[in-house]
Amino acid sequence: MNKIITISRQFGSGGRTIGREIAERLGLPCYDKELVEKTAGATGFSEDYISEEAEYAPNTRSFAYSFLGRSLDGLSNSDRIWLAERKVILSLAEQGPCVIVGRCADYLLRERADCLNVFIHASKEFRADRIVRLYGETAVNPLKRLEEKDKKRKLNYRYFTDREWGKSENYHLCLDSGYLGIEKTAELILCAAGGSHGNE
Amino acid sequence: MNKIITISRQFGSGGRTIGREIAERLGLPCYDKELVEKTAGATGFSEDYISEEAEYAPNTRSFAYSFLGRSLDGLSNSDRIWLAERKVILSLAEQGPCVIVGRCADYLLRERADCLNVFIHASKEFRADRIVRLYGETAVNPLKRLEEKDKKRKLNYRYFTDREWGKSENYHLCLDSGYLGIEKTAELILCAAGGSHGNE
Repeated sequence: MNKIITISRQFGSGGRTIGREIAERLGLPCYDKELVEKTAGATGFSEDYISEEAEYAPNTRSFAYSFLGRSLDGLSNSDRIWLAERKVILSLAEQGPCVIVGRCADYLLRERADCLNVFIHASKEFRADRIVRLYGETAVNPLKRLEEKDKKRKLNYRYFTDREWGKSENYHLCLDSGYLGIEKTAELILCAAGGSHGNE
Repeated sequence: MNKIITISRQFGSGGRTIGREIAERLGLPCYDKELVEKTAGATGFSEDYISEEAEYAPNTRSFAYSFLGRSLDGLSNSDRIWLAERKVILSLAEQGPCVIVGRCADYLLRERADCLNVFIHASKEFRADRIVRLYGETAVNPLKRLEEKDKKRKLNYRYFTDREWGKSENYHLCLDSGYLGIEKTAELILCAAGGSHGNE
């Protein structure tokens, strides 16, 4: 059985809900917001700041902005948060089986043979509908919100991992939660995690 | 339940074997080489020629070559085979539930809500080992054979569909058969095909 399941997901695809569901079914801890709390503890940054900053790749900010918060060691706040989160994730993985949502965990734990790496995506219509139901309307059109979030995650992933976010070859399992449904998506991940596999 | 399952696959990933397996388990016909036979019947080209030609996108051939076999209607043999295969696939899909391996069937049947589109991939090491075991050694290094075949399929898919081959968003399910194993991969597709899903 896989010891660690990492879940990468498009905004609004239900990845967080699915992560909680499979962790509960397997009796494992699920790390998502907990990673932010632990990173806050390690860096001194606030949880809100980390949540926001962790989605930006430094080079997506303006040139002027990129100097703000950059200290003499040349590290930006994004870099500092990345390094702290990396430490938190590697240490949690050492502690035992778990589910980790987001934060490039698939890349950070790439040396481990006991990780099942999952990517969850869905059509824009499905996700737009879902974020309005879950998070409410905002002044920004839901499709625009999706595109901005996805773009940030993609650039962030590219900046820190030099790999392409959502490229099927980077994951063991990619699932369309809009088409399959949230329940079936969770079931498929449990099925993939449960049995023997080629590497064992 | 899904009526049609399309399987796109990297060379050597076991997609054909998996297609046969799930078709047998579901009691459905599996179309793979049968598509070539039917296309041969419809076009007059030989099966060998079709198998070879169907993997080429016309613009990957040399400029001089691209004029050979091009008739006054401006269609190349590749185009003609594509149009005939398209007709064969649309007509088979009309006849009832089935499994279709390769031939851009996911794209050709994109208007149907009853298709489950699957992409199967695996590491180069897994695939190189598998093709040598299945098809034997040749003068060309197996890694080189993989790369050439994948490149042809990618360009062919891009040419005829204007979409990216293997991009997770183009499929409902992408599976790493090297990691999961052939049996588990088939099991996951059966599980995905078997239940109700979000579109129903």
